[in-house]
Amino acid sequence: MTAAREIRLKSRPSGLPTADNFELATVDLPAPGEGEVQVKNLWMTVDPYMRGRMNDVKSYSPPFALGKVMDGGAIGEVTASNSPNLKVGDLVQSGFGWREGFNAAGDKLQKLDPRGLPPQTFLGAAGMPGVTAYAGLLRVAALKDGDVVFVSGAAGAVGSMVAQIAKAKGHTVIGSAGGADKVAFLKEIGVDHVIDYKVEKDLTGALAAAAPGGIDVYFDNVGGAHLEAALNSANMFARFAICGMISIYNATKPEPGPSNLAQLIGKNIRMEGFIVSHHFDLMPKYIEELSGWVKAGKVTWKETVFEGLEKAPEAFIGLFSGENLGKMLVKLG
Amino acid sequence: MTAAREIRLKSRPSGLPTADNFELATVDLPAPGEGEVQVKNLWMTVDPYMRGRMNDVKSYSPPFALGKVMDGGAIGEVTASNSPNLKVGDLVQSGFGWREGFNAAGDKLQKLDPRGLPPQTFLGAAGMPGVTAYAGLLRVAALKDGDVVFVSGAAGAVGSMVAQIAKAKGHTVIGSAGGADKVAFLKEIGVDHVIDYKVEKDLTGALAAAAPGGIDVYFDNVGGAHLEAALNSANMFARFAICGMISIYNATKPEPGPSNLAQLIGKNIRMEGFIVSHHFDLMPKYIEELSGWVKAGKVTWKETVFEGLEKAPEAFIGLFSGENLGKMLVKLG
Repeated sequence: MTAAREIRLKSRPSGLPTADNFELATVDLPAPGEGEVQVKNLWMTVDPYMRGRMNDVKSYSPPFALGKVMDGGAIGEVTASNSPNLKVGDLVQSGFGWREGFNAAGDKLQKLDPRGLPPQTFLGAAGMPGVTAYAGLLRVAALKDGDVVFVSGAAGAVGSMVAQIAKAKGHTVIGSAGGADKVAFLKEIGVDHVIDYKVEKDLTGALAAAAPGGIDVYFDNVGGAHLEAALNSANMFARFAICGMISIYNATKPEPGPSNLAQLIGKNIRMEGFIVSHHFDLMPKYIEELSGWVKAGKVTWKETVFEGLEKAPEAFIGLFSGENLGKMLVKLG
Repeated sequence: MTAAREIRLKSRPSGLPTADNFELATVDLPAPGEGEVQVKNLWMTVDPYMRGRMNDVKSYSPPFALGKVMDGGAIGEVTASNSPNLKVGDLVQSGFGWREGFNAAGDKLQKLDPRGLPPQTFLGAAGMPGVTAYAGLLRVAALKDGDVVFVSGAAGAVGSMVAQIAKAKGHTVIGSAGGADKVAFLKEIGVDHVIDYKVEKDLTGALAAAAPGGIDVYFDNVGGAHLEAALNSANMFARFAICGMISIYNATKPEPGPSNLAQLIGKNIRMEGFIVSHHFDLMPKYIEELSGWVKAGKVTWKETVFEGLEKAPEAFIGLFSGENLGKMLVKLG
C-alpha cells in the first residue's frame, strides 16, 4: 500500500476558480494487479482548457465530475510493474494528472523517450502546447512565405512556440503579452514587435503601429479586444487560427464578441477554431522539426514551476491572471 | 442630345439612409463618340453592399463620391452605336446603374446573351446574387453530402438561391426570413424548416428545434443574433460562409458581435468571409448548372420591382427593412 494525494473537484466555480473549488484527498494505492504498473508522477500540467471542464456543460472534453479527481497530462516514473510493456524506472506520459501516483494497465500508458530533453518538456514545448502551436500555424492558418504573424498570449506555453516557429520560418512576428518580464522574454526570442497589453490600452492602434502593412495570420489565444484589433489590422485573405479565448473563460455573463466581425466579408478573412487532438498526426513531424530548431538554437522555452500537488490549484488559477511565463507546471516528484 | 436622369449621392447617411441622401439630376447625353455606344438602361439593381459604399471609408469597393452618380449593375439596350462591337438593339450588362442612359466605349461593355431568360434575371438569379450563392455554398462552405444547411435572409436574392441550390443537391435546408409572404415562398420552393425571425424571438431555440441534429453549413446574410444561433447549433467541423451582415449595416454605433464565438474552438468551426468578385471564375459553371435546374423546375425566383429611376432610393432603403421578396429591382425602360 502506498499513499498518494490527489486533487478533486469540490464545487463548480462561477467566474474565476478559487481554492474552495478544489479538495485535497489521500488515497491508498494497492500493489498493481496483473498487467498493471504503479506510477509515481513527477510533473503535472495545468492548462487553460481545463477551466471549461470545470463547468457542467457538454464540450469537446467531458466535464470533470464533482468529488472526483481532475485528470490531465502528467509525466511519471514506473515504481512497480506487473506488465511486460514497462519496467521500473521507465518514464511514462499519461492523462492521470492532478495526483501523485496511480495504478494503470501497462498497455494504456505511453512510454516516454526523452530524447535528451527534460521530461517535463513533453508537457510543454515538446508536447501538447507545442504541437498546438505547430498545427495552428501551419495547418489551420496555412502559414505561407511572407506572412506577417500576430500572436496573442505570446509569452505563454502555446504562444511562445507560435512566435518561435514563425521566426524560425523567417516571418515577421508581432506578439502581445502582459508585463515587463514577458516583454523582455519575447524580445530575447526575437519577436519583432512586442505589445504589452497591460500598458497599451488601444490595441488596435498598437497593432496598426507594429504592423503598418497589416497582418496575414493571427493566432488567437485570448479573444475579446485582441481579436477585434486583429480584425482591424487584417490584410485581404488573412487567416485566423482560433486556439483559445482566455479573456472570457471566467465570464459569468455573456461577453459580447468583437463589433467588427463584418470585416470578415470585405477582407475575405478565414477564422477557424481548432482543438489539437484532431491534429496529433502532426506530432512526429513536429518533434523532428523541433529537434532541429533546438539544436540550431532557434527555439527555447520557459517554465513557471509550482512545487507540490497542493499548489496545483494556485498554479491553475494563476493562468488566468497570466502569472506564468512559458509553461505553467507543477512538480510532484 | 438625349436627356437622361441619374441619381447622385447628395449626403452621406448616418444609420438608415433617407430620401434626403439622394439627388435626382438630369444630364444631356451627346451623340456617342468614335468607338462609343449610347445605352438606354432597362433595369438597374439595388443591393445591400451599396450601403457600405455610401460611407467614406476604404473597403473592397471604393466609396461613392458626393455629388456624383451612384453606379451599380444595370441591363440596357444599345440605342446608337459607333462601335464595331455592338449594334443598335443589343442588350448590354454594365456597372453604370442608377441612371437612365449613358455613353461608353463599346469594348468596355458586356453584351448580354439572355439565353431565353428575362434580361433582368442577369441582375439576380443568373447574375451576381446567384453566383454569390453558388460560390459561398460550394466553394467557401465546401458543401458536402449529408450537410444540413441553414441560411438567413433566405427569401432574398442571394438567400433564395442558396436555399434552392442546396435543395437541388439533396440537402436538408433551414431558412430564416421575416413575414408570412416570405415564409410561404420558402415553403413553396421546398425549404424544409422555415423560421420567421419576426415572430420567433428565440432564434437559438427555433434553430435547435428545426435542426435537432445540428447544422453543418451556415450561409450568413444577416449577422448578429442569427450568427449566434448558428454557432449554438453548429456541429463539429461546421463551415460558415459569411456573405453579409445586413443587421448591422446601418448601425450608428458599434454593434457587439455574438457572445459565443468561443464555440469556434471546441467545434472546430471554420467561418470565412467572402466577396463574390473573387469567385467570378465560377460563373460559366454556375450558369450551366442553373440552366439545368431551371429546366428541371428545381429553381425559380421572385422579383420585387419598383418602376422609374426616381423610385431607386425607395427600393434601396426598402432592402434594410426586408421589403423585397427575392431580387429588388428598378425598372427603367
